[in-house]
Amino acid sequence: MENFNVAIIGCGTVGSGVAKILLDMQNELSVRANQKIVLKSIVDIYPAKSAQTYNIPLNLFKGGGKDLSKEEASKYIDEVIADKSINLIVESIGGTSDFLLNKMLDTLKAKKHLVTANKAILAEQGKALFNSAKENNVCLGYEASVCGAIPIIKSIRESFAGDQVMEISGIMNGTSNYILSKMQEEGLDFATALKMAQEMGYAEADPTLDISGGDAGHKLAILIKLAFGTDVKYNDLMLTGIQKVGKEDLDFANEMGCTIKLICYARKIDGKIIATVKPMMVKYDNFLSKVSGATNCVQLVNKYSGTHYFIGKGAGSLETASSIVADIVFSARYNDRIQNITESDILQLVSSDNVEFAYNITFATVDYPGITGLVTTAIGEQHINIDTVSHNRHNKERAIFSVATMPCTLEQIKKAIAQIRLKAPSALIEEPKIIPILK
Amino acid sequence: MENFNVAIIGCGTVGSGVAKILLDMQNELSVRANQKIVLKSIVDIYPAKSAQTYNIPLNLFKGGGKDLSKEEASKYIDEVIADKSINLIVESIGGTSDFLLNKMLDTLKAKKHLVTANKAILAEQGKALFNSAKENNVCLGYEASVCGAIPIIKSIRESFAGDQVMEISGIMNGTSNYILSKMQEEGLDFATALKMAQEMGYAEADPTLDISGGDAGHKLAILIKLAFGTDVKYNDLMLTGIQKVGKEDLDFANEMGCTIKLICYARKIDGKIIATVKPMMVKYDNFLSKVSGATNCVQLVNKYSGTHYFIGKGAGSLETASSIVADIVFSARYNDRIQNITESDILQLVSSDNVEFAYNITFATVDYPGITGLVTTAIGEQHINIDTVSHNRHNKERAIFSVATMPCTLEQIKKAIAQIRLKAPSALIEEPKIIPILK
Repeated sequence: MENFNVAIIGCGTVGSGVAKILLDMQNELSVRANQKIVLKSIVDIYPAKSAQTYNIPLNLFKGGGKDLSKEEASKYIDEVIADKSINLIVESIGGTSDFLLNKMLDTLKAKKHLVTANKAILAEQGKALFNSAKENNVCLGYEASVCGAIPIIKSIRESFAGDQVMEISGIMNGTSNYILSKMQEEGLDFATALKMAQEMGYAEADPTLDISGGDAGHKLAILIKLAFGTDVKYNDLMLTGIQKVGKEDLDFANEMGCTIKLICYARKIDGKIIATVKPMMVKYDNFLSKVSGATNCVQLVNKYSGTHYFIGKGAGSLETASSIVADIVFSARYNDRIQNITESDILQLVSSDNVEFAYNITFATVDYPGITGLVTTAIGEQHINIDTVSHNRHNKERAIFSVATMPCTLEQIKKAIAQIRLKAPSALIEEPKIIPILK
Repeated sequence: MENFNVAIIGCGTVGSGVAKILLDMQNELSVRANQKIVLKSIVDIYPAKSAQTYNIPLNLFKGGGKDLSKEEASKYIDEVIADKSINLIVESIGGTSDFLLNKMLDTLKAKKHLVTANKAILAEQGKALFNSAKENNVCLGYEASVCGAIPIIKSIRESFAGDQVMEISGIMNGTSNYILSKMQEEGLDFATALKMAQEMGYAEADPTLDISGGDAGHKLAILIKLAFGTDVKYNDLMLTGIQKVGKEDLDFANEMGCTIKLICYARKIDGKIIATVKPMMVKYDNFLSKVSGATNCVQLVNKYSGTHYFIGKGAGSLETASSIVADIVFSARYNDRIQNITESDILQLVSSDNVEFAYNITFATVDYPGITGLVTTAIGEQHINIDTVSHNRHNKERAIFSVATMPCTLEQIKKAIAQIRLKAPSALIEEPKIIPILK
């Protein structure tokens, strides 16, 4: 049995988990890979700290275990890339710097397999990386980059090779989902739930990337490229975060038999793609509505095999590491035959405004008899069928109610709202909140 | 690009779905397989009937489209096996006859890849088939044999190659699940729900294999072999069907925050395996409790990546066919490198009676003051902690109540019941119903 030598560059939370599994399971992994999987070297700036949690032997670290300067680390990474005995490099440094991109490209050019959990660099610079992997006939493994432990990448690439993915929807950001779950379960407002998430370590001090939909958008861009064969530019995705979701929105959702989730959504329609990350109302009989806290869930609708759900841990040291190790075994076993992403058909990304969805519209209006009739009549005049009108939360100054529609376009709704403004210029106290409903 | 020629033997519901997908998606499949996937021939006794649903060209059928005698069909199957141009045979005849087993073994000996959805023959005769596939260095694909469209086989084999499966639990029989769902949702008794399932085409005229746990047991045996590397004999599995589940059991379950599902369960404990198929009470916050009708769900607990759920269609023509086609593409692409099952460690199958579970025990007793105290005291004397005692459904003749325990062994419960009999010989009107609770 030949050796298949692995190096890890960047050995923090995820990298150290990979080292642990490679050391703990060497025999099983070698049988599964049909090659002896050997962890040969690790590069990290703080080896002592990195080695601590899982008792990783310090002699595996370049530099013999002493702390490294950035320059030293860079030099050691180059050494690893130049080392002809190394077959595969695990990148767990993170970030989207040119420094990192160049090291990753150098790895591929040196004909080494590359495995990464770095969703940001794949979403933003994936094209260069995937092209290089293909040119150099090596594997670019990225199972860990989308929803941690959930095996969604290999499922789409290998298990659904006899099918076509038509629609993707998922809860792919644990932080946002934790916040929304807390708001729903404990009746908290957004700011309080965010603070709690920060105290529990689920949210960063600067939570922007998580709560704005950016992190979820990275994952969606990667899945679109894989499932639909199209290189959607991350910056072209329409991202709406959860910052504006209020307690009262969850309350209306509940009345409609729904909860609110930050949903990554993409669908192929007539040779085009719509893709968005935004809060949506999810019907209670959809499994996505039951996924709470830091758990992730991906729903796929396939042409032949119908609807699938994958539910699992979206983050965590060993959880994410297990996906990376699966990619290492796959690379070792199947080596030169792994199908890297290629763009089979280039589909255009179009706005979802003209695609039909069921929507919930929450109105805050001046409270007088006839206001419900005015609003619902305007909606009906745009040929929108109404599904439900909520209980009206009157208070002294205003009427607050929501209208759930049957499938219609956002254009139709905007016209209905313009019509309401025309007929009763001062009736709407706030801009109506429009949120799609996922059945 | 070389040709990869495929033959289908047995072209009923599943086989004709495979033919349709192979014909519809030839280009995409060939790109994914890196070989031109060609459906070369089909053997079926009734070609005209078989070709009908999906407009399969009759000239693909051996014998030119005319109905075949069994002898002719057998001769044509032998021809296909002897045809050196054919790379892979899809077996969709079904059953566990020696005739079929021999044709499958002949296929492997002829160095052809074999793909099948036949869970019964794999569970009962799998050892001979897997060994032959390994000896002949060909792939035995069986994704479709467990839970139709759910990609559980490749997920365990490829996606969890960096992990260890510790526990499997799942809803793997759509018919039983349909019946239990109807009983729960509509308050039907077992006989009425079964009749409805038969009228809807979900249950066969002879439903024994489905409702007795036999079909689910076949799937569990296959998963245990794959996940735990052990050839558990199907006949050694403890199977309990759903025939004795009554309306009142679902009512008690509901009071305990549970529903009742037919659960396939297997766990590694101290180098041994427990495995069983039986009705269990499933807590409402477990996703398995939400899976209704003919949908299947597999829950895995892995050592590193934690808990996963896979939910999807467990049966259907194109659903099952899509899994078979994925195996075809995988065989073509990775060819000689696919890891067939090998027994890495032979673990002993032991009874689950001495393994701790939470249980629900339903008592039907003579109704007199003090009976609850007598029962709960006897349970406490066996060092079993009680979680909940249900509302008592008194009627004129009897008291009916259930006791949910904290984890304990079946042995402990049997001792408690013996103790009740000793103290009050005529108190128990019926044998208490004991059902495990899945958290």
